[in-house]
Amino acid sequence: MSFAAASRVVSAGDGTWEGEIAPGWDIVGNADGGYLAAIAARAAGMAVGRPDPVTVTTHFLAPGRPGPVTISTTILKEGRRFSTVGATMTAGDKRVLTLLGSFGELGGDAGVERVDSGPPQLPPPEECVPLEPTDTFPPPFVGRVELRLHPDAVANLGHASGRPRVTGWFRLRDGEPVDTMALLVAVDAFPPTVFFADLPFAWVPTLELTTHVRARPAPGWLACSFTTRFITGGFLEEDGEVWDSTGRLVAQSRQLALMPRG
Amino acid sequence: MSFAAASRVVSAGDGTWEGEIAPGWDIVGNADGGYLAAIAARAAGMAVGRPDPVTVTTHFLAPGRPGPVTISTTILKEGRRFSTVGATMTAGDKRVLTLLGSFGELGGDAGVERVDSGPPQLPPPEECVPLEPTDTFPPPFVGRVELRLHPDAVANLGHASGRPRVTGWFRLRDGEPVDTMALLVAVDAFPPTVFFADLPFAWVPTLELTTHVRARPAPGWLACSFTTRFITGGFLEEDGEVWDSTGRLVAQSRQLALMPRG
Repeated sequence: MSFAAASRVVSAGDGTWEGEIAPGWDIVGNADGGYLAAIAARAAGMAVGRPDPVTVTTHFLAPGRPGPVTISTTILKEGRRFSTVGATMTAGDKRVLTLLGSFGELGGDAGVERVDSGPPQLPPPEECVPLEPTDTFPPPFVGRVELRLHPDAVANLGHASGRPRVTGWFRLRDGEPVDTMALLVAVDAFPPTVFFADLPFAWVPTLELTTHVRARPAPGWLACSFTTRFITGGFLEEDGEVWDSTGRLVAQSRQLALMPRG
Repeated sequence: MSFAAASRVVSAGDGTWEGEIAPGWDIVGNADGGYLAAIAARAAGMAVGRPDPVTVTTHFLAPGRPGPVTISTTILKEGRRFSTVGATMTAGDKRVLTLLGSFGELGGDAGVERVDSGPPQLPPPEECVPLEPTDTFPPPFVGRVELRLHPDAVANLGHASGRPRVTGWFRLRDGEPVDTMALLVAVDAFPPTVFFADLPFAWVPTLELTTHVRARPAPGWLACSFTTRFITGGFLEEDGEVWDSTGRLVAQSRQLALMPRG
């Protein structure tokens, strides 16, 4: 099933939308957070008739499992260029996530541009390491999206020798184009940075994930990097960058995750 | 008037709180965004009885001017460690901002720590350049908080020669301790990074600001840095770090702002 189909929502009136968490988008049973955020963001964008999630913040409240969900949206502002919307996804009587975003239409004259950093240095996709789904790690989710990791990152995976950083390529399966909603998935698709470093090898639950979408991606593979600089106070951040095949920054993300406590 | 007094809110029942935008916290007439966010975050934290804004995202909807405001809060989850709350500030019938945050109680055993970067290199506060308020720039707001900029940053100010980066010291006036709510002000207190670079010298309105608070700050000056790496698509990010006098990272922030269009 395509991402477009797996993230489809239909209006149920009164700012409420119905969708479905599709099977197979999970990590050890729980649906990927970026995928869940994309479903809710699609509803929020449709609520205001603006296609692009310019900045979306999601707080994760409970695991998402396959089945129907309802997204209730609240429009907070409809401005000239952006509309701000809150959205909460529920499954039965359980809140799965809540999201706050500003939506717009990307493109057009951008004015001054200045970029002080470039895409990660990556061998071409055919020389990177594909992740294929298993029941545990790699998770089923990587059967829905296609990830190719930098060979150096893979060499560190679980070997406790590297830095908390991972780089690699992302695309949807079967040549499906990546729209700006799918970028919300890309920024949460890679294994946690801590898997690649001399740190406890553990899933680090995400409390909050914010994504800024700068541009609609050109067709092709997306070059992605995720880096953690600060593990302190029981938290870590994971900073993501996503670059399209023309070398343009299309998304920037930061998530706050919880370190297992000592 | 202290920050504590200027950000005080009182319950008006039904999840609603009343506060006041105090005079003098403005930048050319509009109240500082971080200060406004702190007022709303105080209401949100009180709504769930948790003192520390662990991660707070604010979308700015309209300028805030001195006078009474109402903050309506919605509790989305009350968990074992964190509570997630939405809050919207209105002045009259105008929405000023909306916020989504998770609140908790910082401290205790943090487990594994690893920090790959340190505080900015700054001369001592007495060798940095104090900003004193004027009607334009520096704005009245710097009469409420105390900023000392790195002399190198000041040399670039408006001279179109540097990088979009600024570092300096922050504290509240009159020795008022900085609590975790005041950190929400610190991350939005400095002049925009574009003022220090070969870029159009213009105010860049903030669309969204997310702050992660990692720890309660020790007494004393806070060392702060703000950096922009990507001006593209009509947007720029501003990444902030705030370090306390013991050399501990206490807050990390990112805002998405709008570049004036060409």
